[in-house]
Order: sequence, then structure tokens, then C-alpha cells
Amino acid sequence: MDHLNVNIGGVSRTLPTVRTGNLGRVPLVEFVGDSEFTNAVAQEMLALIPEGTEVLLTVVTNALPLTHELSDRSGLPYVCVRKKRRTYMQNPLIQDVPSMTLGVAETLWLDGPHAARLHGKRVTVVQDVVASGGTALALTRFIERAGGTLEGYVAAFKQGQTTLPVRYLQELPRSL
Amino acid sequence: MDHLNVNIGGVSRTLPTVRTGNLGRVPLVEFVGDSEFTNAVAQEMLALIPEGTEVLLTVVTNALPLTHELSDRSGLPYVCVRKKRRTYMQNPLIQDVPSMTLGVAETLWLDGPHAARLHGKRVTVVQDVVASGGTALALTRFIERAGGTLEGYVAAFKQGQTTLPVRYLQELPRSL
Repeated sequence: MDHLNVNIGGVSRTLPTVRTGNLGRVPLVEFVGDSEFTNAVAQEMLALIPEGTEVLLTVVTNALPLTHELSDRSGLPYVCVRKKRRTYMQNPLIQDVPSMTLGVAETLWLDGPHAARLHGKRVTVVQDVVASGGTALALTRFIERAGGTLEGYVAAFKQGQTTLPVRYLQELPRSL
Repeated sequence: MDHLNVNIGGVSRTLPTVRTGNLGRVPLVEFVGDSEFTNAVAQEMLALIPEGTEVLLTVVTNALPLTHELSDRSGLPYVCVRKKRRTYMQNPLIQDVPSMTLGVAETLWLDGPHAARLHGKRVTVVQDVVASGGTALALTRFIERAGGTLEGYVAAFKQGQTTLPVRYLQELPRSL
């Protein structure tokens, strides 16, 4: 199959499928470049956010506009982990994560002043797609190291067999 | 000076200054992780968008949530250039850009299906900060190569002496 149809909050998209690492063909979910779909998904995800959440935590790039919109609509602040060291970072936290979709390990960076916003807070991890859960666990480590508490995991889509208690809108096929 | 105060659309932020490449200390503008400031800036930037614009074009990462919001508020679609090749890209356009702030050349990638959205369209380039104009010119080349027409340049901030006709909200000091 070379595409998959999804409908969320009244917005339909035909997702192309792409060949990735060791997962075969998987549907490609793109929030970058699609504000209408991003907004519809964010609106539906509002109900998934655990009640005690004080801060949202995500990672670039695809989940960034989604989390911006979720922050806007929920009134909760958000923090975003980066995949590159930027020259302006101060005392960044560093965490490696094995990426199934890319087939290589990635290094994640959280700028010190941003990590400070997690301190003493109940934090919910926001992702576009949860697959193996490796990225979610790396984000959890950032929360712990920053002195925050994990409140929960939310994602637009689940794809695969993670054992993490993720609240998600729809399940995507693992391979097509 | 180790900070700079800005106020846009009624939202105030104290920007820290950071040492970068060969520019000395410059104010750090962060839209990533700040939906309130992003929204205020996007609202003010609406008036800067040239009337004939059909599509917005930007580049990751800091300008991404800003352009998402600008797309949402203007009703114009947007396309986002990436700084990494992703495995799923099909026939991407590739363009090098010298980055003054990072002090190294960067390679920009535009996925083929996204480039197709620029074809035959009048496109306005959206940036968070325009400094030398190098990134703006690289984005212009993408528009030309994709078969679109440049309509104009808009940015939240201008910092430096670009000769490009950029419409912006505020000027930042080049060095502090």
C-alpha cells in the first residue's frame, strides 16, 4: 500500500508511505507545513493531557508546531529538546536515544535555561508518533535530570508495540 | 549588556544576549518553547505579508512555530525547508547557505513533494531574524528552482545590514 487515509477532528489527510530503516514501509505523518491538520490534531489531543500537567515537553522537528499549538490551546507552557547543539546553549543536558526510524543513534540537547523550566514541575511528554518508545524514554530522562516529575505521555499516533502508557488518538499500521 | 527588552503586540520579553560566531554578543530570539510570544509576533506580522502572497516559505527551527502560526492566522499554506536530509525525502532540492551566526556553511534540504507546492505560486519568505540575508537568498533560490515567484521577505526582526527589501517588526542591535 502506498498511502493511508486518516481523519482527525474532521480533517482528512492521505499519508504517503515511505521506506524507513528496519521498519519497512510506514505512513509518513507531517505536521511541518500543514497548519490545518496540526490544529485539528492539537484540538483532539487536548483531552488526552493528564489533569495535573504543568509543562509540556517535546522534541524537534515534526512535533514542534503540534506542541506549540497544544500549548496555545491548553494554556500550558512547553519546552522543546533539540537534536543539535547550538552555540548559544548554556550548560545543556545531553541524552542519547536510539532511533528506530532513522536506524542510527541520535543525541538530544536541552538548553540549561529550558531545563530549569521543568524543575519541580509535573511534565507531560508530547510526541507526533510513538513507535518503540525510545524517544519517550530519553525525554523522561531529561525530566528526571532537570528535577521534574513525569506526569504522562501523549501522542497523535501510536505505531508499534511500546509498553509505555501512551495516550494517543489513532494507531498506525507498523508496516504496509 | 547581557539582555535586551522587547515588546511586541503587548507581550514583553527580556532577551538574553549570547556570543555567536563573528558577530559578538547578539540578542537571542526564541520562538521555540514560547507560544505566547510566538502568537503575538505572528499577529503583528500579518500586516507585513505582501498582498499577492499565495504560499509562505520558511526554514527550521526557530521560525517554524512562528510560520505555523502565521499560516494559521493568514489562511495561507506554508512550506518549510529542513537542515537535515531525512530518509523519506523524494528528489529533494539541495542548497548551501553560509551562516554568519554559526560561522559555518549549512546545507538546506527541501523535500520534492514540498517543493511542488511552490510551483507556479507567489511565495513570501518568512524568517525569525534576518541578519546578513544569506538564508533569505538561499530560500529565494529554492523558490526559483521549484518554479515559483518571489513575492517578498518578512521577518520578526532585522539585525544587520542586509540590502534585501525585508519587511520587519523591529530592528535588533548588531552587537551589544
